[in-house]
Amino acid sequence: MEINIQKRVLEANENEAERLRKYFAEKKVFVLNMMSSPGSGKTETLVKTLDRLMPETRTAVIVGDICTTNDADRLKSTGAEVTQINTDQFGGDCHLAAHLVEQCAREFDLDSIDLLIVENIGNLVCPAEFDIGEDARTVVLSVTEGEDKPLKYPLMFRLAQSAILNKADLLAYLDFDADLAVKNINEVNPEIPVFRISATKEEGLDPWVEWLRGEVSGKLEPKA
Amino acid sequence: MEINIQKRVLEANENEAERLRKYFAEKKVFVLNMMSSPGSGKTETLVKTLDRLMPETRTAVIVGDICTTNDADRLKSTGAEVTQINTDQFGGDCHLAAHLVEQCAREFDLDSIDLLIVENIGNLVCPAEFDIGEDARTVVLSVTEGEDKPLKYPLMFRLAQSAILNKADLLAYLDFDADLAVKNINEVNPEIPVFRISATKEEGLDPWVEWLRGEVSGKLEPKA
Repeated sequence: MEINIQKRVLEANENEAERLRKYFAEKKVFVLNMMSSPGSGKTETLVKTLDRLMPETRTAVIVGDICTTNDADRLKSTGAEVTQINTDQFGGDCHLAAHLVEQCAREFDLDSIDLLIVENIGNLVCPAEFDIGEDARTVVLSVTEGEDKPLKYPLMFRLAQSAILNKADLLAYLDFDADLAVKNINEVNPEIPVFRISATKEEGLDPWVEWLRGEVSGKLEPKA
Repeated sequence: MEINIQKRVLEANENEAERLRKYFAEKKVFVLNMMSSPGSGKTETLVKTLDRLMPETRTAVIVGDICTTNDADRLKSTGAEVTQINTDQFGGDCHLAAHLVEQCAREFDLDSIDLLIVENIGNLVCPAEFDIGEDARTVVLSVTEGEDKPLKYPLMFRLAQSAILNKADLLAYLDFDADLAVKNINEVNPEIPVFRISATKEEGLDPWVEWLRGEVSGKLEPKA
């Protein structure tokens, strides 16, 4: 019974997400869904990414957390418009669903936004199952988490269009094989680029930002 | 509707967990539920803990993962009996539930076991909601994850009987305030001890192992 109910919840979410995707297309907004474990450095990566994208790429951010507005507060320093979803009022939900993203997105003036980034709740499992009407997904893995995570949590890596290997500045102090981590990501998803960065030290960010800029302009200025 | 169904699922699990707790009590087995984010070092902590507990404390381990048997393979090197649950056959479940733990526990000869440790799926959210018939919960936080995690994911910390702050050997390379992390844990749960350790470097393990040994003997040899 539980599995059937989960199916119905997922189906309802998929219908909602498809509708939302059309709405974002009409508004010419590219939507990126960023996902990871807690503490992989999503927010720090976003802060440094926004510093490079803005103001040319007009960007807004929706931040999902169960509790606290810490991440939203950090992101506001970039000048981007930021809205926070706290899921504790919805029973401490472990993922963002399409209807929550829609509620938040409607608070922005989408006509003056090119890119909407959704920082999902820190969780390598459940967010992967919930389409939120995004155009692309990026999964962030930090080098402190172990090389095997793509194999242990394959769905999130399988459904991503790019991956970030963060905290590369700590590699010198860890017994972590970055090449093996990339190999494991590409075992699950052979197509995607993996960007090795250190968000705190601002290393390796350019290829990642270029990739994102290319995705955004690919949607907003489609080739004739 | 979704919330009502979630309630029913949680209630069914709680009934199952209560029954299971009685069964473990009859068998005189202490059950520890270990939880954390992916990559916090639960398995490494367990390997080093088992080295110190065994063979005096006869220990068995149930390891939960969505995919792979990596953790079980690492734990078997300690000589403990180990059973793996892979939840991918149950739709990639993001937590262990009482009925799954019961299935695995019945594979062990519980009459010759003092301590059963359940290494839950790497996830700071959902496992906290599912009682598995345990006597105590320990949450592992690594110093690479950020000091604010207890405030962002409070339920898991609120329901724990102890916490481990792992990867303390990396503190020198991080902008992480360990005292603030401990303060945040105790803000959510003032009672619990927080053990600062480095599992890989085998530092700080003794107070943690002593705590666990005390909990186990407190249940198995109750004071007159």
